[in-house]
Amino acid sequence: MKLEQMGERGIIRKLGEIFGERAIEDDCAILHVGGSYYMLFTTDTVNQKEHIPFTATPWQIGYYACAVNLSDIAAKGGEPQGLLFATTYPKEMDMECVLEIARGMADCAGMYGAAVLGGDTKEGENLTIAGVGIGRVHRSMLMRRRGAKPGDAVYITGTVGRGGTAFVKLQHGYEQKNATKELLEITPRITLARQIARLGVVTSAIDTSDGMAAALQQLGELNSVGFQIVWDEKFPVYPDALRVASKFGIDPSDFIFYGGDYEILFTIDGSFSDEFEKKARKKKFPVTRIGRVTQGKSIALKQANGRTLDLTRYGYEHFHRKSQGPGKLKI
Amino acid sequence: MKLEQMGERGIIRKLGEIFGERAIEDDCAILHVGGSYYMLFTTDTVNQKEHIPFTATPWQIGYYACAVNLSDIAAKGGEPQGLLFATTYPKEMDMECVLEIARGMADCAGMYGAAVLGGDTKEGENLTIAGVGIGRVHRSMLMRRRGAKPGDAVYITGTVGRGGTAFVKLQHGYEQKNATKELLEITPRITLARQIARLGVVTSAIDTSDGMAAALQQLGELNSVGFQIVWDEKFPVYPDALRVASKFGIDPSDFIFYGGDYEILFTIDGSFSDEFEKKARKKKFPVTRIGRVTQGKSIALKQANGRTLDLTRYGYEHFHRKSQGPGKLKI
Repeated sequence: MKLEQMGERGIIRKLGEIFGERAIEDDCAILHVGGSYYMLFTTDTVNQKEHIPFTATPWQIGYYACAVNLSDIAAKGGEPQGLLFATTYPKEMDMECVLEIARGMADCAGMYGAAVLGGDTKEGENLTIAGVGIGRVHRSMLMRRRGAKPGDAVYITGTVGRGGTAFVKLQHGYEQKNATKELLEITPRITLARQIARLGVVTSAIDTSDGMAAALQQLGELNSVGFQIVWDEKFPVYPDALRVASKFGIDPSDFIFYGGDYEILFTIDGSFSDEFEKKARKKKFPVTRIGRVTQGKSIALKQANGRTLDLTRYGYEHFHRKSQGPGKLKI
Repeated sequence: MKLEQMGERGIIRKLGEIFGERAIEDDCAILHVGGSYYMLFTTDTVNQKEHIPFTATPWQIGYYACAVNLSDIAAKGGEPQGLLFATTYPKEMDMECVLEIARGMADCAGMYGAAVLGGDTKEGENLTIAGVGIGRVHRSMLMRRRGAKPGDAVYITGTVGRGGTAFVKLQHGYEQKNATKELLEITPRITLARQIARLGVVTSAIDTSDGMAAALQQLGELNSVGFQIVWDEKFPVYPDALRVASKFGIDPSDFIFYGGDYEILFTIDGSFSDEFEKKARKKKFPVTRIGRVTQGKSIALKQANGRTLDLTRYGYEHFHRKSQGPGKLKI
């Protein structure tokens, strides 16, 4: 069977049969190296053709390649320690461009208390940056994907739809500079995720790097649960999403759940959720309760107009495009 | 300036100005995480177009992508703990091929007591595998590239010229299956390097993944030293190199120093070298003394016929091909 028929997650499931479930379950590999900390390792590749709009500056490309890896560490409640970058550059590329990419990497790492520790430089037809994030997390603070159970409350940090909004803008050639910034100059939720993890009540967590819908699907599959998400007036839609949707006559639900937001989606045991929210308000955490974990497999988005949208059917996923419908967010 | 004018090591030196010298000095990033061990991290990318002959099986590709990273850990005296693979697959690739690559990775990792901990799967035009090796080394056993000084004795594990020999065979369409095996089914020197490191007398070490000449050049530059290598009857030439050289009427010195051998080249303080060799003989280490560290920058190969060959001028290096002459080993 060809990869395009399998879908990215289909491929990963098959790889899990060879490498073991542990290798595919979480955003990071988790290694106990003695003491009270786990080491976290993650790798995420950025290909110019697949992920980077032509409007991006080299600095933004480097920043983004670093930040996506830090986001995986954030999803585990971890603190970043260092990064490696295995990079493939076309030989006709200009050295100044390489240095600007490197500065973007170093600047992003520095903002989050990490450093670029090394890497590998190869020649190839296309610019490809495989970043490696190295972090650590105290055993008591580790957040995993596995753990959500029916009755848990579902939360998200920040807002939903920044990536999707940027995509719509780029698709229409509208506010391109701003859209490129929204897409690439993301803020890995390192500090906030650690503050949340420290409270010790999170049952599962994942970043929304492939969009909120994909994050819910992955958590749902892994934990054999469904979700009911309520899209009411309190739902934290990315502010510009509504303006852009209205400008281009699109329903925001067509794009806000399918673009990479790099927020943390997490669940908390229902009996601790009120207490968690009280603490979160007091500490001014930008988190919003958006629904609950259900039995069964459906991921239902209850809209204010009474309609229910099925979020399992769409979502940006590599390799697998034919059946994606409106969720096909690709630059 | 374009990258093709800079050469791979020229690019890496420039990157060192941004990331700091520490990031570019060694085969691995070395991180002290508390206790008496250092963590080692390395990343090495394998591109199908650049590194893999068309005769390779998918299993061999996976094995190789894993082994090259283990070789970097070996060069530090480390023991591997785990690997990650960030892989880009063309969408028209067959799933069975992906699984065979994965089995090659898992088999290689398993042979050296490590496991594949995770990774990332993306779609792209060409098969690219960015491997990440994670290892650890006791502080007393860490071997670094920095440390060689004039008067040190120079040693190499195993033989010299396996990679170059395989290249010549492939170039001539001769014994292709065997050559592909020689090129890809390499043996990272994990166990031997650790036995050597444990003796505590190594002043510097590097793997010969870009060939012996490139390894000497890198050690030389970093330590501001030169080398005198003696090619006499005791020099450990890869046995098949002489047969192949004679078959195709080529001088073995045209290829044996420029192909990736994945052996460990290391130096030992002159006053400890006799004692080291006594121990090495007793323990039957496959290591050979091949020369000494000198003052100045020349890397001279003294041949048995009295001629001296300058090893600084050639060597396989990415991006930089025009001036390579006979050292241009490329599949």
